[in-house]
Amino acid sequence: MSNDIVKPSILPGFMELLPADQIVFNKVMDTIRHNYEKFGFIPLDTPVMEKSEVLLAKGGGETEKQIYRFMKGDTDISMRFDLTVPLARYVSQHFNDLNFPFRRYHISKVYRGERNQKGRFREFYQADIDIIGNGKLSIINDAEIPSVIYSTFKELGFEDFTIRINNRKILNGFFEYLNITNKGDVLRTIDKIEKIGEEAVIKELMDLGVEEGAVKKVMEFIKIKGENDQVLKALGELGVNSEVFKEGYDELSKVVHYIRCFNVPEKNFRIDLTIARGLDYYTGTVYETILDNYPSIGSVCSGGRYDNLAEYYTNQKLPGVGISIGLTRLFYQLREANIWGENASSTLSQALVIPMDDCIEESIKVANGLRNKGVVAELYLEDGKIGKKFAYADKLKIPYVILIGPDEVKENKLTIKNMTSGEQNMISLEEAVNLIR
Amino acid sequence: MSNDIVKPSILPGFMELLPADQIVFNKVMDTIRHNYEKFGFIPLDTPVMEKSEVLLAKGGGETEKQIYRFMKGDTDISMRFDLTVPLARYVSQHFNDLNFPFRRYHISKVYRGERNQKGRFREFYQADIDIIGNGKLSIINDAEIPSVIYSTFKELGFEDFTIRINNRKILNGFFEYLNITNKGDVLRTIDKIEKIGEEAVIKELMDLGVEEGAVKKVMEFIKIKGENDQVLKALGELGVNSEVFKEGYDELSKVVHYIRCFNVPEKNFRIDLTIARGLDYYTGTVYETILDNYPSIGSVCSGGRYDNLAEYYTNQKLPGVGISIGLTRLFYQLREANIWGENASSTLSQALVIPMDDCIEESIKVANGLRNKGVVAELYLEDGKIGKKFAYADKLKIPYVILIGPDEVKENKLTIKNMTSGEQNMISLEEAVNLIR
Repeated sequence: MSNDIVKPSILPGFMELLPADQIVFNKVMDTIRHNYEKFGFIPLDTPVMEKSEVLLAKGGGETEKQIYRFMKGDTDISMRFDLTVPLARYVSQHFNDLNFPFRRYHISKVYRGERNQKGRFREFYQADIDIIGNGKLSIINDAEIPSVIYSTFKELGFEDFTIRINNRKILNGFFEYLNITNKGDVLRTIDKIEKIGEEAVIKELMDLGVEEGAVKKVMEFIKIKGENDQVLKALGELGVNSEVFKEGYDELSKVVHYIRCFNVPEKNFRIDLTIARGLDYYTGTVYETILDNYPSIGSVCSGGRYDNLAEYYTNQKLPGVGISIGLTRLFYQLREANIWGENASSTLSQALVIPMDDCIEESIKVANGLRNKGVVAELYLEDGKIGKKFAYADKLKIPYVILIGPDEVKENKLTIKNMTSGEQNMISLEEAVNLIR
Repeated sequence: MSNDIVKPSILPGFMELLPADQIVFNKVMDTIRHNYEKFGFIPLDTPVMEKSEVLLAKGGGETEKQIYRFMKGDTDISMRFDLTVPLARYVSQHFNDLNFPFRRYHISKVYRGERNQKGRFREFYQADIDIIGNGKLSIINDAEIPSVIYSTFKELGFEDFTIRINNRKILNGFFEYLNITNKGDVLRTIDKIEKIGEEAVIKELMDLGVEEGAVKKVMEFIKIKGENDQVLKALGELGVNSEVFKEGYDELSKVVHYIRCFNVPEKNFRIDLTIARGLDYYTGTVYETILDNYPSIGSVCSGGRYDNLAEYYTNQKLPGVGISIGLTRLFYQLREANIWGENASSTLSQALVIPMDDCIEESIKVANGLRNKGVVAELYLEDGKIGKKFAYADKLKIPYVILIGPDEVKENKLTIKNMTSGEQNMISLEEAVNLIR
């Protein structure tokens, strides 16, 4: 027989968790879901695979190589690589059946055949929310999104995190005003300031053909830092004569004002003029979220405002604003850092009921009683020594063991042992329910 | 532009729901999950795709043609077609990290490229539980499984459903005793009794080479019907001298006894000697579940006991017992029959807060207050006539609309309208929270 055995293993780059970690992971996912729902977002679920011509309508660019694409019979199929393209497809396909603004959340797996490396997964969960307008969408929505981020990460147990906010129009308008057309090169140069220093940046900018006056303005711009109001004040005093800049400035000011109305503490959000977000389709507000004590993890929740969600599927103009949490990567990083999941229990069971001396019927009765009262209870039904049964409870970290033997049956009680303290008592079912809860 | 537009659509045979249905679907899924957890089952999540050599180690047989299988670079990949093979792979791969009996639930999507037909889906959810023993597993587990089915379908809103129970060993032992070797042919013949009648069945059995005495016994056997105790009594009186039969009889008797201990009402479970379940690997107890008022749907929850879960991956003997709910198909059928989802709401929001006369800050404050008290609240932030805003609440079936204008701000109150009754009052936030909850 053993010759026929195939070594059980999964594909490289895929994540699979043991029970203790899975339970923590699910708790994180439930917390995110609960917060998304609290703000009135509607759940969506779309197929994991779609027609390639539809999913790749935009063209893939960088990601196209990573896409899981295959033929099934005559059908050209691709696995989704994010939840945004399926949303665009969904909203345009079902446009007449939806009500706008359309607020949806979607927590599900996406697929990217990335190069295999630590902490990068080919199958991973994204947890997205988006608010889609029909034709237009109020800027105040851009202020509500950070309040969802705040509420979510707060409930996930974090105090020290910063939602970084910017508006693409500010940088665009600023560069337009300075007649800088090679924006990409200039941004890359600016990005190097901490590495190469101010002087070297100035030199590089000059080499790129940026005029002396413009270089001075750029240096002034990138030095704007501080409290949110200080940054807004400094931005206003820059004297940038550009409609786009003014629009961005006005939007950012409004967003900051309303974020405060949404009760996000000042320490948890900050204007950061260096944030641009790689994706092309963001057109206004952009967000990144940093765990202050773990900056190396990078942004744990990013997103922004886009002018047009679904231009490849419809002529309807659908502006929107949204964010995405890369859940699998986030979990992996925080698990590795032992922030999540250390000493986690391998079960949801709150009590293990062990029949003694064949008191099985009575043990089942106790388990029924516990379950009816909402206690997650498990029966140990196998033969074996009592030590083995306690070891099972111990390994799974089940908090209480309940013993039912002839004495307990006679007294109509149960013996309950607190597996942490070792305390053991004979009490009634009702008392046990109260103790466990 | 419009020339570049791709018609948004999904692959045929895939299910995608509009918000109202999705919300009902998720509620069903949550109910199943909650019941599985209540009985101490642990959540698992495995990759949607696996190495073909591992996933198809058993060989596919009938299903092999249906499998989504493709190459990515040099890697031969298959999408899972059930949750049982991944469980077998998981348990053998992580054997040393697991504790037995291992109780897991798994609610997730599986893939089968079936012929496209109404009510059959190529991507569908299964909701499985299994209890896996290391070497052996008590028969009482076979009695606990129906109590999970009972608890689940009860909470899903059903009263009239029947869990049909049988044991494969009874039929196997019976045939062995009668020296019937062409079991398949005989079973097929028996199955036709309602169509062709008793006499024709007798004739066909004789044609198949079954001896006259054996034919008589078979006819006697298939007529055994009635209350559970009557069936057991009649089975016992058949006088079948076979170890296998006796084992099956003994197991079935125990299962019936303990199902009663688990408080499953007599009307919700019934021995049905005709149930065999197509799958080869069931070796003892088998289950099917029928909604009494919708028999045409077929079994909505099936499963059974198997001797050896993972023989293709390990030499460890891993007996188990489990069930599976075909969630997508079940939902589709009950939705079509208007049992589920009629007049469902298209949102989870309990209240829509509408700012009047630019009282936006105060409206945000009210939304904050509601959300802090656990009310799912949504803000309507767009410009437009009040009628349009009410229409939005109406279409989504949001139960309460809250208006915040200068009067409400002055009085530190809010105006709340019950969208069903039309009743409208100006009350405090606290009163509103109580009203909505």
